[in-house]
Amino acid sequence: MAQSGDNKHTQSHLEELNAALSSGEFLPIRRMLNSLPPADVAHLLESTPPKIRAFLWQLIDLETEGDIIQYLNDEVQAQFLREMDAEEVAAIAENLEADDLVDILQQLPDRVIQEVLSSMDHQDRQRVEHILAYDEDTAGGLMNTDTITVRPNITLDVALRYLRRHENLPEMTDHLIVVSRSDEYIGVLPLRRILVSDPSVTIREVMSTDLEAIPASMPDTEVAKLFERHDWVSAPVVDDEGRLVGRITIDDVVDVIRENADHSLLSMAGLDEDEDTFAPVIKAAPRRAMWLGINLITAFIASAVINIFEGTIDKVVALAVLMPIVASMGGVAGTQTLTVVIRGMALGHISKDNSRWLINREVMVGAINGLIWAAVVAVAATLWFDDRTIGVIIAAAMVINLITAALAGALLPMIMDKLKIDPALAGGVALTTVTDVIGFMSFLGLATYFYA
Amino acid sequence: MAQSGDNKHTQSHLEELNAALSSGEFLPIRRMLNSLPPADVAHLLESTPPKIRAFLWQLIDLETEGDIIQYLNDEVQAQFLREMDAEEVAAIAENLEADDLVDILQQLPDRVIQEVLSSMDHQDRQRVEHILAYDEDTAGGLMNTDTITVRPNITLDVALRYLRRHENLPEMTDHLIVVSRSDEYIGVLPLRRILVSDPSVTIREVMSTDLEAIPASMPDTEVAKLFERHDWVSAPVVDDEGRLVGRITIDDVVDVIRENADHSLLSMAGLDEDEDTFAPVIKAAPRRAMWLGINLITAFIASAVINIFEGTIDKVVALAVLMPIVASMGGVAGTQTLTVVIRGMALGHISKDNSRWLINREVMVGAINGLIWAAVVAVAATLWFDDRTIGVIIAAAMVINLITAALAGALLPMIMDKLKIDPALAGGVALTTVTDVIGFMSFLGLATYFYA
Repeated sequence: MAQSGDNKHTQSHLEELNAALSSGEFLPIRRMLNSLPPADVAHLLESTPPKIRAFLWQLIDLETEGDIIQYLNDEVQAQFLREMDAEEVAAIAENLEADDLVDILQQLPDRVIQEVLSSMDHQDRQRVEHILAYDEDTAGGLMNTDTITVRPNITLDVALRYLRRHENLPEMTDHLIVVSRSDEYIGVLPLRRILVSDPSVTIREVMSTDLEAIPASMPDTEVAKLFERHDWVSAPVVDDEGRLVGRITIDDVVDVIRENADHSLLSMAGLDEDEDTFAPVIKAAPRRAMWLGINLITAFIASAVINIFEGTIDKVVALAVLMPIVASMGGVAGTQTLTVVIRGMALGHISKDNSRWLINREVMVGAINGLIWAAVVAVAATLWFDDRTIGVIIAAAMVINLITAALAGALLPMIMDKLKIDPALAGGVALTTVTDVIGFMSFLGLATYFYA
Repeated sequence: MAQSGDNKHTQSHLEELNAALSSGEFLPIRRMLNSLPPADVAHLLESTPPKIRAFLWQLIDLETEGDIIQYLNDEVQAQFLREMDAEEVAAIAENLEADDLVDILQQLPDRVIQEVLSSMDHQDRQRVEHILAYDEDTAGGLMNTDTITVRPNITLDVALRYLRRHENLPEMTDHLIVVSRSDEYIGVLPLRRILVSDPSVTIREVMSTDLEAIPASMPDTEVAKLFERHDWVSAPVVDDEGRLVGRITIDDVVDVIRENADHSLLSMAGLDEDEDTFAPVIKAAPRRAMWLGINLITAFIASAVINIFEGTIDKVVALAVLMPIVASMGGVAGTQTLTVVIRGMALGHISKDNSRWLINREVMVGAINGLIWAAVVAVAATLWFDDRTIGVIIAAAMVINLITAALAGALLPMIMDKLKIDPALAGGVALTTVTDVIGFMSFLGLATYFYA
């Protein structure tokens, strides 16, 4: 899996852009920005530092701004929205689908949302208000209202004539949604089935009812799992009474999958998944400072532990040389367990029935690897300091710390999950605190016993 | 973003399964495994420890095994395949689409592949061999051959009659692919456009030609970016001569996106994205041991640096107490920069034109945060050890190490990328080596100068 696979198309756009920028010719840039697909322009904007980004934004025509803004990540989107007044947002809103518009509105202050809503026509406003009522991270917040519905008792022929009255069907329409007279969801009729079926049969005869509709309150991560597991292109969303309220399409689900996967990676470094790669110093520094501060507390706790054994270190300085090895190996081993468990939880693999097996496995792995590397370190330390005692001490401390690391790496995320603390964010810091404290404590404690 | 959102459906299946297992009744389990959707069974299998997993697999009927196996992750898939002979694989192969079958075949030894291929009928074999010829990580390896093609000069009516001769159209067929007489790709005709168009027009009049076909040699990560950026459901794949060779569907692209995102997270802990959450000790231990060994080398390098200053520590033991703070803060700050850069590279945001800006930004952030926390640590250290010199020393070392960390965190992945080394895998170890060495060196070096 290449990490760095650069999209040649976009990379060449980026190079073209930079060449034009440094030559100072703005006309080709403006032409480029207003002719490229909106998603590509969004990617270009995300790939430029703040000043150039602001400059490029000014060159984009107002009517294409809406198309582009929906493809930007939340943080960059917010930057541009902050500069706009309600009228401009309303102008952009005209070209957007209801769900994409809602994503944007959710970034704005309530006052502006109200202004934008009041500038819309009745039907559009209703649609948007409908989605706004749901939490952003649920199926309701993810859905769109552009459903094409039919009744089960009509024939395909009638349905086809009905479809032909449309100028076009919404993007990602892979099926018609079959509903009852009172809008209750019944089933779906795939377009690809319409095309191969005899037009005289009724919809009831060819529709499929095994696609269960998604409740509007389902968390978006659940929705993503369903889409992944069943290879859906779109799926109907229903309210508590089983009435159709909208549909979710795979393009929005892909964003959820991407964000969730990014979340674990970035959280483990105390970063946010909406993070702008080119955030200015003034935004990036405070965000990171917080995380460093939290880790500084951990570091001071470790120092306090070392301080307890100051007297022993004073006697045997070799201990100071070797002690980081025990702590760091514990940290590395613990992070491996933590990562496996956090990912297993994200994939929905871990339940209370199999967590004991998993903890046992991790402890076994920790013990085995502890013993292997303890032996290596023991020999190395003994030879280095010509002192067999120090070899025995570091070996014992390594085994203790690697087993502790395995236990902490497996248990901490499970406990945090119960307490509704995000393990991806807090797990790493908590783990390092444990492995540092136990690492220094066991190594220096044993040393104090042996050298006393 | 909840990390732990458990799919209620699947969780309840998992609970049901465990209840049945502990009650010792196998009939309901067998019934359950053979009636649930294959993707759900695959998820259940991935969520069980090895022994139960092997037992469950025996309860599954041979004819559904094929459906299920395609949804398993590579490592679990390989476990089951290893137990099968070519005949069994061939039996499974019958129910699979060509691209999914190829994914499975690629896990098998050449001898078995040949046996399976020779048991297939001519047309199927040709299809599979066609895809097998492409690298697994390219568009060609990702594609399927189930394209429905039409010529541009026929009318929609003729096309509709042609479609009605099919029993059904392949899953995820969202458009017909328009090709020339010599199979050159021309454009696509969305099904949803067919349904709203006048049947008497020709395909040429309603097809769209702005969807650029994907070259078969394009890396799968690029393909994923194109799908994400253009919200495609499926896209045609062409060979070097522009002839249609297959099509890629979003469900397979979602797997690529998920795997790539997982890759960064897992690699940073030295793990593999195909990792089975419930890998037995005998598989998990050696894989992790390697990573610990590599990190042990790093730890010894750090110890060697400390050892240089043994004399100084012997004089001022407080140095041993405080030195881990400098190293660990450098590691944390560097990991933040590293994560931002690795993710920016994966998203295709970083190019040679903007990398200088990014490095500058990181160094600025490092310097600012270095100064802030250096001040805090200086005060704390001065008060703790009642020694103003040690406060000055640790503050200076902190600033040096945090700037170094920013530089290393930004430059290392860029350099590794040039050298075709995976920065997600090697970046963390390299970074920690730098921050440990510079952290201990600056702190203890300054101390040696001041206390000499």
